[in-house]
Amino acid sequence: MNDHEIFELEDVVLQEGATLRHARLAYKTFGTLNEDKSNAIVYPTWYSGRHWENEWLIGEGMALDPNEYFIIIPNMLGNGVSSSPSNTPPPYDNARFPHVTLYDNVGVQHRLVTEHFGIEKLALVTGWSMGAQQTYQWAVSYPDMVERMLPFCGSSKTSRHNFVFLEGVKAALTADDAFKNGWYDEQPIKGLRSMARVYAGWGFSQAFYWDEVYKEKLGFSSLEDFLVGFWEGFFLDGRDANNLLAMLWTWQNGDVGKTPGFDGDHVRALGAIKAKAIVMPAEKDLYFPPEDEEYAVGHMTNAEAELRVIPGVWGHFAGGGLNPEDTEFIDNGLKELLDS
Amino acid sequence: MNDHEIFELEDVVLQEGATLRHARLAYKTFGTLNEDKSNAIVYPTWYSGRHWENEWLIGEGMALDPNEYFIIIPNMLGNGVSSSPSNTPPPYDNARFPHVTLYDNVGVQHRLVTEHFGIEKLALVTGWSMGAQQTYQWAVSYPDMVERMLPFCGSSKTSRHNFVFLEGVKAALTADDAFKNGWYDEQPIKGLRSMARVYAGWGFSQAFYWDEVYKEKLGFSSLEDFLVGFWEGFFLDGRDANNLLAMLWTWQNGDVGKTPGFDGDHVRALGAIKAKAIVMPAEKDLYFPPEDEEYAVGHMTNAEAELRVIPGVWGHFAGGGLNPEDTEFIDNGLKELLDS
Repeated sequence: MNDHEIFELEDVVLQEGATLRHARLAYKTFGTLNEDKSNAIVYPTWYSGRHWENEWLIGEGMALDPNEYFIIIPNMLGNGVSSSPSNTPPPYDNARFPHVTLYDNVGVQHRLVTEHFGIEKLALVTGWSMGAQQTYQWAVSYPDMVERMLPFCGSSKTSRHNFVFLEGVKAALTADDAFKNGWYDEQPIKGLRSMARVYAGWGFSQAFYWDEVYKEKLGFSSLEDFLVGFWEGFFLDGRDANNLLAMLWTWQNGDVGKTPGFDGDHVRALGAIKAKAIVMPAEKDLYFPPEDEEYAVGHMTNAEAELRVIPGVWGHFAGGGLNPEDTEFIDNGLKELLDS
Repeated sequence: MNDHEIFELEDVVLQEGATLRHARLAYKTFGTLNEDKSNAIVYPTWYSGRHWENEWLIGEGMALDPNEYFIIIPNMLGNGVSSSPSNTPPPYDNARFPHVTLYDNVGVQHRLVTEHFGIEKLALVTGWSMGAQQTYQWAVSYPDMVERMLPFCGSSKTSRHNFVFLEGVKAALTADDAFKNGWYDEQPIKGLRSMARVYAGWGFSQAFYWDEVYKEKLGFSSLEDFLVGFWEGFFLDGRDANNLLAMLWTWQNGDVGKTPGFDGDHVRALGAIKAKAIVMPAEKDLYFPPEDEEYAVGHMTNAEAELRVIPGVWGHFAGGGLNPEDTEFIDNGLKELLDS
């Protein structure tokens, strides 16, 4: 997929101390920036997602309408399109790729938006999962720049339980000897498939499996067909073990309180948000449960923020664009927010 | 631990077709069988549990009072104390241990209870998790024998989601090359530890981790200390990889509908239960959620059955004897049921 642009970041000094040299931010845009540069939307990617896997939320007649808005999808660092373990030359290559935070990601996105496009205000930042985490980070890092935000199925701080879920994912991937501590020549296939099986129980809700929604709505012929065809296929689709682990670190360490100036105070960071917000967890999301987002909204005391739960059985993948009803729910929220 | 008795089963023809020769059922009893043999309770073990890990629910003044009842704890086949991959001589040893169903387990327990003790009625069958699954199986296999049942944090049929959760656990364990398809000389430590990390996110609820209950109530010094000290320690405590996989197969294939005579009809099997029942899922159990048990109770049309949810944040481990409040809740239910 070469349908994207590259913003040359040159040297990026990361929050954890390393310098990522000749770093590159890959992005794709939709629509046209208007004259007063007031119609820009940033829509970051999610864990392992690439820009083309975000496009389902963009389209004519939808909230993210390219006829009306200039939509930028920046690829998260580590996702294999922007600078990542798999595409960075030595010495910061592969298992030596440095730790990257959400703050770092949003920092380089901010450079793209301001230096390259000369944009001073964003009409909206939105995203799914780690894209939602980047949305929160945008609103905390640049409170005067983000006018609206709609994080869906994410959080402002990775909860301990979410951290533990990711520990299981990581352990399953790295249990494979073929992983070789990250110095493999071939992908650790057994580890990637194990990771997929671990992920499968978390990505969708208990009720999703009880109702066999993977058959009726997604067209898989059996439970095992879903585990192999959807889940194993997902992690084998051009995804790289070190990239997955780099993004996993970013996720596990997600916390807007780590933004410079807040001294680790997550609640104070939430209080700095000024963007008008609709916060959308999914009812049965097993690792970003609605109560965590209710907590966050309760601390966005400086913003007009509403909690609006996506109903239904799709769990975390309510935000994945697979279910038209959930997509419509999110799209309606985006329309309402953009019109306000 | 040699504080148990062995019932020599001799040849056991299993539901899936194999014959387990010279099979042994290990059990421990508490209290004294009364003259009319009316005070017997069967209390099976759970996934990976051994009889001594059931004892927390037994004691003077508790429902399971040895002064009043004759309590039998049979060790589940595969748990390393009864016949298991780790203790069965060739050719059915280790990775070749045959598939054992819950029906098989209850069948050999029934032989112990009737042939060895001459008991014709059971005042109660109760158990946690897979112990709850065996409780259901008792009530379906021997409906005229089981007077009362109190399955806690379990199910009558392993749900698809529960199956998928176990796929992740299995994948993490077997991803370790040291597992050698089950023909290891040393335990696959990396796999066992990976399995533990996967399990960690499932065993307790999101809220349990949010509230750091592992610190306050269990005395662990940090999240990582809990993951290593509790979870990794748990799976390294004399547990064997093939044993864990044997019991995992039993669990994944749990379904009272597979009892001979019901032709796979789970609902009809539930309808055959006559035992007076209190069914106790835990509010935030992530793999045996309350709605599944509500469904089961709704189909126990031939029994006086009540759904009673254990409240709180402990998730599946509400039934593990670690939290005094949950233990009291279960114990009170048992008292009420035994007095009725």
